[in-house]
Amino acid sequence: MTHEIAVIPGDGIGQEVTPAAVDVLESLEIDFEFTEADAGDAVKEETGEALPQETYDLAASADATLFGAAGETAADVILPLRTAVDSFVNIRPAKAYPGIDAVRPETDLVFLRENTEGVYSGIEDRLTQDVSTLTRVVTESASERLAEFACDYVEDGDHDGFTIAHKANVMRETDGLFRDTVNSVADENGVETDEVLMDAFATRVCLDPEQFDVVVCPNLAGDVLSDLAAGLVGGLGLLPSANVGPERGLFEPVHGTAPDIAGEGVANPAATIVSAAMLLEYLGYDEESDRVHEAVEDTLENGPRTPDLGGNASTEDVTDAIIERL
Amino acid sequence: MTHEIAVIPGDGIGQEVTPAAVDVLESLEIDFEFTEADAGDAVKEETGEALPQETYDLAASADATLFGAAGETAADVILPLRTAVDSFVNIRPAKAYPGIDAVRPETDLVFLRENTEGVYSGIEDRLTQDVSTLTRVVTESASERLAEFACDYVEDGDHDGFTIAHKANVMRETDGLFRDTVNSVADENGVETDEVLMDAFATRVCLDPEQFDVVVCPNLAGDVLSDLAAGLVGGLGLLPSANVGPERGLFEPVHGTAPDIAGEGVANPAATIVSAAMLLEYLGYDEESDRVHEAVEDTLENGPRTPDLGGNASTEDVTDAIIERL
Ligand SMILES: CC(C)[C@H](C(=O)O)[C@@H](O)C(=O)O
Ligand SMILES: CC(C)[C@H](C(=O)O)[C@@H](O)C(=O)O
Repeated sequence: MTHEIAVIPGDGIGQEVTPAAVDVLESLEIDFEFTEADAGDAVKEETGEALPQETYDLAASADATLFGAAGETAADVILPLRTAVDSFVNIRPAKAYPGIDAVRPETDLVFLRENTEGVYSGIEDRLTQDVSTLTRVVTESASERLAEFACDYVEDGDHDGFTIAHKANVMRETDGLFRDTVNSVADENGVETDEVLMDAFATRVCLDPEQFDVVVCPNLAGDVLSDLAAGLVGGLGLLPSANVGPERGLFEPVHGTAPDIAGEGVANPAATIVSAAMLLEYLGYDEESDRVHEAVEDTLENGPRTPDLGGNASTEDVTDAIIERL
Repeated sequence: MTHEIAVIPGDGIGQEVTPAAVDVLESLEIDFEFTEADAGDAVKEETGEALPQETYDLAASADATLFGAAGETAADVILPLRTAVDSFVNIRPAKAYPGIDAVRPETDLVFLRENTEGVYSGIEDRLTQDVSTLTRVVTESASERLAEFACDYVEDGDHDGFTIAHKANVMRETDGLFRDTVNSVADENGVETDEVLMDAFATRVCLDPEQFDVVVCPNLAGDVLSDLAAGLVGGLGLLPSANVGPERGLFEPVHGTAPDIAGEGVANPAATIVSAAMLLEYLGYDEESDRVHEAVEDTLENGPRTPDLGGNASTEDVTDAIIERL
């Protein structure tokens, strides 16, 4: 069976790290068909649109999409692409790699972020000269879907349960609905949960990241708290993410376009290659996914290394070293 | 001129640290009149109300209020009290003290948090079985008031300007209004600003806290990001805060009720005493405020210390040591 993979490199180092991840995927004995498409600042400059309709349609029909990065237009690209693949959860692991400088090297967390609603519903109004409003939406159905995913996730991964991070002491109805729904799905599935206010989470994860493992949260909480965890493991540079829908997925590194080094061929491809490993797992290639994870970890630990990690290897050197280890 | 000070110890260690801060204020030669009132879990247990009307009225008429902590009922107490004093800004310094363990000892930040609106407007609805909504409100007037305060704050404190942390790439209308209004007030006042997305702030402050100084943000961003900074300086234990209105203020430690040690007389009074120093500054007693700050810093560095800092002194020992140094 052929898998259609959409490849959207985007801007800046997206143009370098996305082909690197495609090279890794191509080196495996899997029947992939890659189709490339444009998105981001550069295509907006040319055509007036950051996300051309063809690109949206491609992501909406491919089995999986690999996305690099977008610049100023990031929100105009990534938010519709998440919708295109109907992704209801954003999986964001934040793990410190051995041998890589980290503020908190013991950090090993996975965020399961609600990916469709919350303040991202984007219903805004300027009611008067003085007053603007945004309608934050939380539904039982989206909370349920996320919770069911989270239950499977902790069972498959042998986790002890998960933590719900929310702000239901202030957003009583909306985050209350989120918390209660997630808790009741977990209950039905016999999965243990505990909960923490998102502000308390921010303090506690700095003091002792090992007290958390899998963290389930609303959309904006997941955005901010996973980026905080990224800071604890030493930056966005190495972090992958998966936007998972029922029939397709979108896989992207958490980092941006890195304009300071774009075009020099020295961008670290690790985050995108690990995102490709998440793509492999999503499509059922667990064994291949594990091999890619291990090859990346081994390469990060033993080199070669790109300049962001103190080395002087190129993107290609690192990609080749990972492929050799597969 | 007599200053009326409302004293609301609340629950748990609030009952221990608030009197300690009152002792410090009483030791200065200032004409204060203290009136105590109840709030929190204990009074709710007794009367059914976490914030009795008398307490609200007292805070709404006193020149300043010193608040300790509340347990489960924290939101029911602190949010109306902020309204009672008409506080439009919450000042939250997060500084690592010399000699105290910190994840990032070089952290020295001040958050100026919008204190009246955002998701805290609390307009929520359960539209259907499935759908709940919250209306997030951002006004030009509240953003302006905060920005004018921020401009005075950086000028008085000889700061180079301030950073605006927001999420205007997603909340375009509401955080866009916030950002644009704050920027234009800063422009008029010749104050420099830069801006950062709140998620990027979370990563960057972990990696290098010294790149930030004064941070101006909407209500929930201020809540979460200042708690994150608290984690970087070693916990909430030492952090004070001020809720400032045009005619009165409310001063409170950032920590909670610490039920594990409540009643033992060993709670660290530093955060509440520094909050009292912020109260002194608010009322115009700058010299006395500086003396209290210095006495606390010297005591934290040279002891005696409460058990949370590895010592075995009591709340009273530490309070006496601070008063001696005044
Ligand atoms: C670019 C932006 C809209 C996006 C988000 O807020 O989700 C980004 O921060 C992320 O986390 O992928
Ligand atoms: C208790 C809660 C409502 C409050 C808030 O969210 O503002 C607290 O977290 C704080 O920061 O003082």
